[in-house]
Amino acid sequence: MNLPFDEVLLDGLMDGAGIDLVLATTKHNTQYLLGGYRFFFFARMEAIGLSQYIPAVGYPRGKPDRSFYIGHPAEAGQQQDEPIWPTTIYNEALTSEQTAETAARVINKLGLGRGTIGLEMPFLPADAFARLRQLLPHASFINAVEILEDLRAIKQPNELQAIKEASEAIVDSILSTLKRTQPGITTYQIADILRLEETVRGLDFDYCLVATAQAFNRSPSTTRWEKGASMSLDSGGNLRGYIGDLARMACLGPPTALMVELLDEVDSVQMAARNAVKAGAYCNQIRDNAEALMAILPHSDDIEFEAHGVGLVSHEAPHLEKGSTKAMRRLETSMVLSVETTMRNHVVGFVKLEDTLVVTNTGWEAYGDGGRKWNIVEC
Amino acid sequence: MNLPFDEVLLDGLMDGAGIDLVLATTKHNTQYLLGGYRFFFFARMEAIGLSQYIPAVGYPRGKPDRSFYIGHPAEAGQQQDEPIWPTTIYNEALTSEQTAETAARVINKLGLGRGTIGLEMPFLPADAFARLRQLLPHASFINAVEILEDLRAIKQPNELQAIKEASEAIVDSILSTLKRTQPGITTYQIADILRLEETVRGLDFDYCLVATAQAFNRSPSTTRWEKGASMSLDSGGNLRGYIGDLARMACLGPPTALMVELLDEVDSVQMAARNAVKAGAYCNQIRDNAEALMAILPHSDDIEFEAHGVGLVSHEAPHLEKGSTKAMRRLETSMVLSVETTMRNHVVGFVKLEDTLVVTNTGWEAYGDGGRKWNIVEC
Repeated sequence: MNLPFDEVLLDGLMDGAGIDLVLATTKHNTQYLLGGYRFFFFARMEAIGLSQYIPAVGYPRGKPDRSFYIGHPAEAGQQQDEPIWPTTIYNEALTSEQTAETAARVINKLGLGRGTIGLEMPFLPADAFARLRQLLPHASFINAVEILEDLRAIKQPNELQAIKEASEAIVDSILSTLKRTQPGITTYQIADILRLEETVRGLDFDYCLVATAQAFNRSPSTTRWEKGASMSLDSGGNLRGYIGDLARMACLGPPTALMVELLDEVDSVQMAARNAVKAGAYCNQIRDNAEALMAILPHSDDIEFEAHGVGLVSHEAPHLEKGSTKAMRRLETSMVLSVETTMRNHVVGFVKLEDTLVVTNTGWEAYGDGGRKWNIVEC
Repeated sequence: MNLPFDEVLLDGLMDGAGIDLVLATTKHNTQYLLGGYRFFFFARMEAIGLSQYIPAVGYPRGKPDRSFYIGHPAEAGQQQDEPIWPTTIYNEALTSEQTAETAARVINKLGLGRGTIGLEMPFLPADAFARLRQLLPHASFINAVEILEDLRAIKQPNELQAIKEASEAIVDSILSTLKRTQPGITTYQIADILRLEETVRGLDFDYCLVATAQAFNRSPSTTRWEKGASMSLDSGGNLRGYIGDLARMACLGPPTALMVELLDEVDSVQMAARNAVKAGAYCNQIRDNAEALMAILPHSDDIEFEAHGVGLVSHEAPHLEKGSTKAMRRLETSMVLSVETTMRNHVVGFVKLEDTLVVTNTGWEAYGDGGRKWNIVEC
């Protein structure tokens, strides 16, 4: 079969964890395993009635032809227009418990009633898990979220394209939002304009973090953006599930010398981090590079560095967190990183750049790399 | 304390179910118990890293002053701008398991370690539930989603206002979308325009069901809307969490006599249903009224009737489903109903009206009640 994911990798990961069948039940992992398919009706909604829609993809190790999909009775129409690869489809589950009941029935039929089933424990509803345990009393259940995250770590070309478009759209939206501001606008209003700009560009808006002047509080509020004040805009939005997550700076009127200096320091840390990005390099080299420079910068006390993978999930593999054992792994071509440097300065306020990098054989490519200086709004 | 919900009702419902403490963990129920508060960063997102954000409101029966809220470390800023009523707030949970750990600690401290805890079983992640059971080995756990649904059934004035605005915005968005169409537009494009129109009006778009010509498949697709063909648009979008969910009809050019006849039949069923809406009336009278008329209509074989409550959740109380024992209850003032009549006709296609009604002492008020005839798009 021609699967939309790396089946050899998945089989290997399952084998390593002793998993006979993975039952993916989140929107992001079912979408991934199905090569992009997500039931449109529940793409954004969660609850219906007293329960929720839980799609499920069951994948028995090494047997893609025995894989199955469990959906909602109203899904058949979309599957006509957008066929999915599992040969067995059960569009019959209205509730979380019904998804579990169908899954248990199929797992028994596959002869895996005594097998080890990999589940998404931080997402699978408690009632669905209880039903699986009741109907599969001899099965073992383990958490498979890490395996699925590892499976998604290296992005395919269509995924890179979506992340690229999403990243560019976020930056374009930020710059367009700035054109629509004037002194005295509240950060609520700014977040609202940004939401609209992202929607116009085909994104699903996720959030807008916004700080202005000396405040470090980034919740949109009635705080006003005034002449001479800095503003940090940090937004996430997704295109077909793929997240763009970038941060840019702006000033109402020309920035002060200190503002320019601080953003240059932030930028230099970002660039030091980029220097460590290349297929085959160790993940933790990124942080090491950034921290080595931070230590000798004039405002080193105010600076913080963070980095994480990004894709269908905010903060996914590769892991670059401080002290994570996974940060000892190596970067691979087509992994995607979000790299962020934050300066909290009591005079200027919150100064941040967040960039998106895709790992290449020779280094990196930055997606949506415009607007990284002070974006000046005339007033 | 001045709580944003009916505390006497909640205590009574908990007492009836033998629940000592409700631990609400969904976005909709925590928002409800907190009087509108929802952490903006995760309002639309779900997963982060290998787990997800799970907010929690703990309410011990009869002791609102011992209630608590569990949030994310990044939530404090929003709570400064938008204070919430629980006196004890733990902004410390990054994952589903951490929310459970904090909850267990507080429940033990409240002396309820041997109590009965009401949980949202179709939503609470399996790993969080496992942690609760492990840390509260002597507690009993039962499903509290029905109690919370009952608590939400009668809407407060600010909730009615949000549903009214959402309903009006949905209908306005549908009518504006029609103005931007022309022959040959695909149903994908129509859904995209509608998403934008709803966003401009401040809604969070949830879904667009769209059918044209003789097709009953309502998934947005590459199907084109052509001259003379009918189109059914059925969309859900929410304002501050409150759902507007309405359906309207359109035709590219003047509708045929049969089209007019069918929509009139649909409309007559909707009006028959409305006649049964009034505080004190039995819920099931709505369906009885509709079905009595449907039986004698010329196209009775093609007609289907559905009705459900609506608010923070699609399909909530009051329950009007066929055969539901809850449909024997009485309507009360300020309940909100979504009433839908569908005609599947092989010549005209999918003909549907869905309306939103709020129950009043003397009858009903319809929200977003415009555009209920054939909306003709000149071509």
